[in-house]
Amino acid sequence: MWEETGMDLIESEVVIVGAGYAGLAAALRLHDAGVDCVVVEAAGRVAGRVLTETRAGGLTLDHGGQWVGPTQTHLLALAARFGCGTFPTWETGRHVEVWHDGTTVPYLGAAPAEGPGIAEYTRVTAVLDDLARTVDTEAPWRTPRCAQFDACTADSFFRSHTTDSDALRRLALGVQGVWCAEPYEISLFHVLFYLAAAGGWEQLMETRGCAQDSRFTEGAAAPARAVADLLGARLRLGEPVVRVAQDAGGVRVRTASTLVEARRAIVALPPHAVRAIRFDPGLPVSRDGWLSHSPMGRVAKAHAVYDTPFWRATGLSGIATLYDDGPVGVVFDNSPAGGAPGVLVAFVYGDRLTRWADLDPGRRRDEVLASLARVAGDAAARPLDYTEKIWSRDTFARGGYEAYMTPGGWTGYGRRGWREPTGHVHWAGTETASAWNGYIDGAISSGYRAADDVIGSLQADG
Amino acid sequence: MWEETGMDLIESEVVIVGAGYAGLAAALRLHDAGVDCVVVEAAGRVAGRVLTETRAGGLTLDHGGQWVGPTQTHLLALAARFGCGTFPTWETGRHVEVWHDGTTVPYLGAAPAEGPGIAEYTRVTAVLDDLARTVDTEAPWRTPRCAQFDACTADSFFRSHTTDSDALRRLALGVQGVWCAEPYEISLFHVLFYLAAAGGWEQLMETRGCAQDSRFTEGAAAPARAVADLLGARLRLGEPVVRVAQDAGGVRVRTASTLVEARRAIVALPPHAVRAIRFDPGLPVSRDGWLSHSPMGRVAKAHAVYDTPFWRATGLSGIATLYDDGPVGVVFDNSPAGGAPGVLVAFVYGDRLTRWADLDPGRRRDEVLASLARVAGDAAARPLDYTEKIWSRDTFARGGYEAYMTPGGWTGYGRRGWREPTGHVHWAGTETASAWNGYIDGAISSGYRAADDVIGSLQADG
Repeated sequence: MWEETGMDLIESEVVIVGAGYAGLAAALRLHDAGVDCVVVEAAGRVAGRVLTETRAGGLTLDHGGQWVGPTQTHLLALAARFGCGTFPTWETGRHVEVWHDGTTVPYLGAAPAEGPGIAEYTRVTAVLDDLARTVDTEAPWRTPRCAQFDACTADSFFRSHTTDSDALRRLALGVQGVWCAEPYEISLFHVLFYLAAAGGWEQLMETRGCAQDSRFTEGAAAPARAVADLLGARLRLGEPVVRVAQDAGGVRVRTASTLVEARRAIVALPPHAVRAIRFDPGLPVSRDGWLSHSPMGRVAKAHAVYDTPFWRATGLSGIATLYDDGPVGVVFDNSPAGGAPGVLVAFVYGDRLTRWADLDPGRRRDEVLASLARVAGDAAARPLDYTEKIWSRDTFARGGYEAYMTPGGWTGYGRRGWREPTGHVHWAGTETASAWNGYIDGAISSGYRAADDVIGSLQADG
Repeated sequence: MWEETGMDLIESEVVIVGAGYAGLAAALRLHDAGVDCVVVEAAGRVAGRVLTETRAGGLTLDHGGQWVGPTQTHLLALAARFGCGTFPTWETGRHVEVWHDGTTVPYLGAAPAEGPGIAEYTRVTAVLDDLARTVDTEAPWRTPRCAQFDACTADSFFRSHTTDSDALRRLALGVQGVWCAEPYEISLFHVLFYLAAAGGWEQLMETRGCAQDSRFTEGAAAPARAVADLLGARLRLGEPVVRVAQDAGGVRVRTASTLVEARRAIVALPPHAVRAIRFDPGLPVSRDGWLSHSPMGRVAKAHAVYDTPFWRATGLSGIATLYDDGPVGVVFDNSPAGGAPGVLVAFVYGDRLTRWADLDPGRRRDEVLASLARVAGDAAARPLDYTEKIWSRDTFARGGYEAYMTPGGWTGYGRRGWREPTGHVHWAGTETASAWNGYIDGAISSGYRAADDVIGSLQADG
């Protein structure tokens, strides 16, 4: 391995790269086991693709991951350990659909019972759920028809199962909402794997009892900050890792100013960020290939703040899905647990994100507010505060919520390239999770898994 | 833009990132136009994915790109300008096919006239050629059914056009041989675009009059070295670029030790290497998305050297295609223009590369030599010299021959993300070429195009 002069030299049992939920969970597990570790993080803050901001007036907004559902037990337990409270996502009243032709239609209940394409949409998603039940989430490549499903896109599958253009629009918005991708760029098998890892289509799509069930009183970064406080000086922010070398003796991780020598490393980054590091020796072909078939989703969140959640007075929940030509795909009532202020959050995904992100900021805001007015009333066009986070432009995340697999990624590279350790380097990150892959919960369980593997291998070393 | 201290500061009209054929061609065009430029290259040598080595005894071997065909006029003209000679690829005698069941069958002519799957293979490739004629190679997204063809893999297309397993094997080897990828991971539209850019399936596959027509007497890097000599001190090797910033005034390109300030930049790197650079401001979503849907092919070349090309004495050409369970897909007679020594080159691609690259070096060599013995006789198992280059493990190239597009890449990102300049940063590299995309010739024309655009924009600035 290389030698360096003029750098801070740190020695530790384990070095963790990345202080998102995966890296922090790994550090916490090592801490609990009494194993010494150091965490190096490129950004000046923790929590990665979770980003809680306090706006003027003390309002807490989540620009990134924000929800927790009842089966996301790793996240719930972590929050409970550090006393981070949750509250049910606001959803009382009528939801709204804005159809392709601009028609605005309210409905009650988790999903509309009727409307253009609903029957076909429901039929096709039931087929997806049936196929997802065949997936082996611990060893996805062992799934009976993995290669067949992985050789086609979700789009090919949808079009071979329905010719109903409204149903195709609903299916596309589903893909946009969950993967921040378009059906034409994502592997059908990856969709099935992800459904299996979450517990089915309804778990991914719905609110009460599902992935969007609850929010965090102090924001979704609160548990991450609590872990960071516990780690103290073992956590080093603002240190992008440029090089990771290993030999029989251990691992060396280099940032611009620091060299960490350790017996094991846990790399807990999104796939593209792993590829930006120089590894010595180079990564195995299957690991590198896995990473290069994992683009990040395209997403932004825009928040608009009002005196009160005025839409509730007219019987509206603030939840909406939009199929029109505006930028917004989905709207939620993101107001705090208390009664005020009122907050709407607009999600911009996929192709709509690409077009919208190129506009100047004023035009972006105007378009989002026009969409909000369509679903919550004209008053939504005049917020007290407006803020947006384009994750595709984030220096470190470069997209969100997570990376998805393009066709062939699982087939060609999954068995050795997904999360099998590379010598003394172990892999974490929500993209390596078998349960709630792509979610905060998956990030946490992936960190625990990697830490447990490292503890086991250190014990085997003696 | 950021400020730096303690770095070499260089000022130039144009800075070029990458000294492969694309970057060198751009520099040459600027040189000829009297425009000042500096070229920074990460590796300690020029020519990128072309790598000529002189072995013991003075034998010249090409580990990377090696051929030139009669319609590759940019490469032919560049070679002529610097007096780099070519000679016809050795192909006299019977070629060999090793079938799936291990049967070894010789044939005469460019392609076997009969054999398992030949008729169906020929029929499907004719359909591909027909569809390729509809492609607009200058603006591929304007192709009539671009979105439809881009939403599926080549595998989906092949399986919907034939159920003949031998034809499917032939089609797969074609994809492996041209894109170093498997049919299940490549966009059908990308295959069609690439066919159109080269002039059809036969141009890609065959030798005489086609892409594999001739080789370079002094190796395929000879023209690149000639350009490097001409550039002299304007070429800076061993300087990986880590950051590119721009504002209205121009561009700053930073390596570990050097800062280059210029009015324009031309970035001439493979897609993954562009993504490893930090851009300020960040790349547009469409450019970043384009790059993240462009994995590199998986390929290695292995050379075996013998006293003489002994296979010619038994009427064999040394050219072979293999469908068996060995690592090798294609073999060529890579002997020099003179009569000796004899050289066979074995190509290992795709899934076969992934498996083979994980073996220890002795086992890799044994497997390749066993394949060579199958197609050229037992004496092929006892070479005087053996050497291999696993491009997927190359620090800078990380694959070869080029990047291909996964499904949806052209649809979602092509129009703005393929090669449209990003402010003062222009894009070159064979992946941005409209003719012979993926080849040395495409790299050269892409460099000329980018340089011409830069010259035009500098003139417009005044």
